[in-house]
Amino acid sequence: MSFNIPTSKKKRVIIVGGGFGGLKLANKLKGAGFQVVLVDRNNYHQFLPLIYQVASAGMEPTSISFPFRKIFQKRRDFFFRLAEVRSITPDQNMIQTSIGKAYYDYIVFAAGTTSNFFGNEHIREYAIPMKNVSEAMGLRNALLANYERAVTCATEEEKRELLNIVIVGGGATGVEIAGALSEMKKFVVPKDYPEMDKNDLHICLVEAGSRLLAGMSEKASENARRFLENMGVEVLLNRRVSDYKNHQVVLADGEVIPTRSFIWVSGVTAVQVGNIGGDALGRGNRIVVDEFNRVRGMSNVFAIGDQCIQTTDEAFPNGHPQLAQVAIQQGELLAKNLVSLEAGEKMRPFRYKDLGSMATVGRNKAVADIGAVKMHGWFAWAMWLLVHLRSILGIRNKILVLINWVWNYITYDYSLRLIIYARKAKEVVDREIREANSHWGSGSGSPDDERP
Amino acid sequence: MSFNIPTSKKKRVIIVGGGFGGLKLANKLKGAGFQVVLVDRNNYHQFLPLIYQVASAGMEPTSISFPFRKIFQKRRDFFFRLAEVRSITPDQNMIQTSIGKAYYDYIVFAAGTTSNFFGNEHIREYAIPMKNVSEAMGLRNALLANYERAVTCATEEEKRELLNIVIVGGGATGVEIAGALSEMKKFVVPKDYPEMDKNDLHICLVEAGSRLLAGMSEKASENARRFLENMGVEVLLNRRVSDYKNHQVVLADGEVIPTRSFIWVSGVTAVQVGNIGGDALGRGNRIVVDEFNRVRGMSNVFAIGDQCIQTTDEAFPNGHPQLAQVAIQQGELLAKNLVSLEAGEKMRPFRYKDLGSMATVGRNKAVADIGAVKMHGWFAWAMWLLVHLRSILGIRNKILVLINWVWNYITYDYSLRLIIYARKAKEVVDREIREANSHWGSGSGSPDDERP
Repeated sequence: MSFNIPTSKKKRVIIVGGGFGGLKLANKLKGAGFQVVLVDRNNYHQFLPLIYQVASAGMEPTSISFPFRKIFQKRRDFFFRLAEVRSITPDQNMIQTSIGKAYYDYIVFAAGTTSNFFGNEHIREYAIPMKNVSEAMGLRNALLANYERAVTCATEEEKRELLNIVIVGGGATGVEIAGALSEMKKFVVPKDYPEMDKNDLHICLVEAGSRLLAGMSEKASENARRFLENMGVEVLLNRRVSDYKNHQVVLADGEVIPTRSFIWVSGVTAVQVGNIGGDALGRGNRIVVDEFNRVRGMSNVFAIGDQCIQTTDEAFPNGHPQLAQVAIQQGELLAKNLVSLEAGEKMRPFRYKDLGSMATVGRNKAVADIGAVKMHGWFAWAMWLLVHLRSILGIRNKILVLINWVWNYITYDYSLRLIIYARKAKEVVDREIREANSHWGSGSGSPDDERP
Repeated sequence: MSFNIPTSKKKRVIIVGGGFGGLKLANKLKGAGFQVVLVDRNNYHQFLPLIYQVASAGMEPTSISFPFRKIFQKRRDFFFRLAEVRSITPDQNMIQTSIGKAYYDYIVFAAGTTSNFFGNEHIREYAIPMKNVSEAMGLRNALLANYERAVTCATEEEKRELLNIVIVGGGATGVEIAGALSEMKKFVVPKDYPEMDKNDLHICLVEAGSRLLAGMSEKASENARRFLENMGVEVLLNRRVSDYKNHQVVLADGEVIPTRSFIWVSGVTAVQVGNIGGDALGRGNRIVVDEFNRVRGMSNVFAIGDQCIQTTDEAFPNGHPQLAQVAIQQGELLAKNLVSLEAGEKMRPFRYKDLGSMATVGRNKAVADIGAVKMHGWFAWAMWLLVHLRSILGIRNKILVLINWVWNYITYDYSLRLIIYARKAKEVVDREIREANSHWGSGSGSPDDERP
């Protein structure tokens, strides 16, 4: 296999990862005189802010997933490649990937982050992560399968384990999934499981820090906690999870919580590029970049978004928060800077413009910090809906998502409670990757990858 | 584990399988004075007539999948159990399942059929079946992954294998998926894969018999073939597939067709109940039943739909065609007959009322036989849409499906081309079944399953 991309008089920009940052960069490079190659391990962009809706059976996976090839239809000098990057050879301007090697003039790493299990193998094996659409579907399936088992399981102990949902991590994702599941408990479980006492379903949110939504204002944290507790969620603060064994979450202080519905949204670590390490990485394994998002010591290697850390922005001496907005703004600026580079002009340093942040806890319940303005309740929630509906790609998806929301709002009922998975799909994907790797050595493949 | 169903003064009817027949029966038994237990290996009903739409990325899997617990919300004396039936012990009125044993007063097998690979292990391993929503999602993923690979694969030979789509089986499913994929080739591939010459994508439909849609009129068969060939599908009749090896479909006459997109919709065999065999089974391993759909020699064991064969209907001496309508009508009558049995009245024998059959080949292209009336083209297609939209459960789903259809009709573009699978989901389901089986011996579980 090879990248099989035609040579061009234009300089080639390879973008690794089609998240918020990579997508924005690719969009802004339209007509900028580059040949753009987008590499992603999935063939679709994921709208992660709504992922908890998929996990809680409130939304179609396809409503928040957008095929790259559709997004970039009719775009000229653009190429999508379904692949994983393995390593980089800067002195040859070459990357090695699961489908062979490719050469670049500029390369931008925008692959984001993955779940951080802090090296605990038990947690890695048993916890259910929620970092992408696939995992969100897996979580939905696991929860529903556990409900079904709880109805017929042999012992009270097993039943308690199945119906205790423990969410570890009090960030936006943890707060949002906790809220969504408590609504499922309130509005759906009694109707779907008349045999089940909904009070047997226990949702617990564990946060190691002293407050939820640490990235937001004290006020927002406080409101989120109050909202969740009013909805019956048990919120544990200043409690660190140390292990998971015998169907029990083990806390640092020795206390245990029995559960087989163990959701892990507690931390992230930047996606690794095989041979970028050591000094090149900062906190959270993020690639250290300068004020132009350029990797230290490199002239044509860049990194944006969650995968990088930039300490040159006065307002953020310890690096920016890992938010979509940061990635989007970095992608936008980098597009301009690449053009400047080509034109031999000065690049502009990155300054993050905080547009505020919000999190939703449930219907009519959200918290938002817009500069000095701290909002919560119905208005913040309506704003949250609006902002996210606006950002979803495609008119069709906007319509479908809106219908879903209106429908769920009126009926208090989701209709996507399916334990469903693509049979053979996983095998196919695994085989893809296996076979691709077998091509590794001969990665160069067709000559059109070679440079003159 | 155990079925964990409360004893009741009412007689218990266990329905195995929530397809068209089982679902109709369960619905019609409402208020009939029975305790109804529905057992299915999935937690949702599947609307199989539209499954090819899922496989061709034209429709959400969730648009044709309906959670049983939602369908039967508020229904009293009804219980759903996620389980697989392993065997039956008639003299104890007991079944053994993946979650333990359960006792019945009446049991109805309505588990339908599964793909028939005619004992060929190569075909079983490599062919992509399309008998349920999971498999349809797997097919979609496999096709899209193959397109991606075709863009970067190393050799022309591999590329040809990836872009040759071979569909084996010229029944309604084969005709419909062939039509849908040829539309994808015409309308989607050129936009999504500008790098790919759409003429490299070759769709071939192989049928062992002398005509397509053998169950319909000669006229319908002829029109379907003409439609497909006009859409660029190569239709091979009177050609039997004997094997699959080295990425090649091997025909009985020795000819081979290279392909890695090998779709198998060529035959079905009834789902087996462990210890029902021998004389009890007829053609296609279907359970032989009398005119009341009662299993031969049994007083309280029944079978309906595709899983059974009934030769007592004068018009169908060799058994009924395996169609949704037959299952639905048998389910409807059996509900009445069970009531009659309880009342000590005579049961009514089953007579199939043919409401006609239809198949769609593409936009504005369908064939329909309604009694003596043979239709094809736009009107038949519009009727096909109407009939199927009517039969889809739930207003929300009707709306979503309609939007999808209208959208695709106007834009000639699907937006669901996602290689997506539920991570960890398969592992979860496998573990469920494994663990369930470990409970096997102790299946009786809680005493409430025992009879006085």
